[in-house]
Amino acid sequence: MDIHPDLAPLAVLLGTWTGRGDGEYPTIDPFGYTETVVFGHVGKPFLTYQQRTAHVDDGRPLHAETGYLRLPRPGRVELVLAHPTGVAEILEGTIDVTDGRTNIALRSTSIGLTGSAKEVTATERRLTIDGDALRYRLAMAAVGRPLTHHLAADLRRTGS
Amino acid sequence: MDIHPDLAPLAVLLGTWTGRGDGEYPTIDPFGYTETVVFGHVGKPFLTYQQRTAHVDDGRPLHAETGYLRLPRPGRVELVLAHPTGVAEILEGTIDVTDGRTNIALRSTSIGLTGSAKEVTATERRLTIDGDALRYRLAMAAVGRPLTHHLAADLRRTGS
Repeated sequence: MDIHPDLAPLAVLLGTWTGRGDGEYPTIDPFGYTETVVFGHVGKPFLTYQQRTAHVDDGRPLHAETGYLRLPRPGRVELVLAHPTGVAEILEGTIDVTDGRTNIALRSTSIGLTGSAKEVTATERRLTIDGDALRYRLAMAAVGRPLTHHLAADLRRTGS
Repeated sequence: MDIHPDLAPLAVLLGTWTGRGDGEYPTIDPFGYTETVVFGHVGKPFLTYQQRTAHVDDGRPLHAETGYLRLPRPGRVELVLAHPTGVAEILEGTIDVTDGRTNIALRSTSIGLTGSAKEVTATERRLTIDGDALRYRLAMAAVGRPLTHHLAADLRRTGS
């Protein structure tokens, strides 16, 4: 099935990505993780997104998230995300291509929390896709802290 | 892998469900759909949830949604959902077992919208699981309408 023509700028994301990341936050011990990300499509004007991480030491599952990427108009990106931690998140931002690299910068515009979720008030993500390499950084304002660096990872495309 | 012991009341949902539903809303023509729902787990205290529907006439993809189910305490359920329509939703409610049937009643407590999404202000879902049968009804307040019946479906467990 062909990708929806409106999604052409996001086609660089399609496939399975795996790699390694490092997490930190003022309230926790730093940790390493392995990550698997899958971007897919069904012919409609959005990408599907699934992600999971495991602890680098013992492989136990850590975070996961799932959702959809939309391109409401040229140069703009929307990410709709559900987290098993009880967070439902909207992020919006920009996409551009510079020197052959695709850059996506997103910031939360809405964060919904279940009654039992920890407080998260803002997140920011920056992704760079360069061929079969995907790097991202994520900052988070949570549990009373301002927007603070939390995650950085280097992934490689390992499946189409 | 065993299901997390706190999730025991949700174990009746595990597996793949398929069936048929009917959609209606004051602003659209009624339509029939086929549906596939998968509830899974990774050993942690949440269920994973993926859903997609296709038009009953020509099989074209219609809606999809994905997210996680949590049980914050006995009798209470939280659903964290992402929709490709630009909606990130939290629903909360109750779970009980009556006459061998599991009943789940959920109402939206937070709805986040991307800038390009249609307005949705509230949703309500009622699920009944009776052995290998799952029925649900969904009401929605959207595009200026009050909470109004939208979807009803009958699914059967077709995979573990």
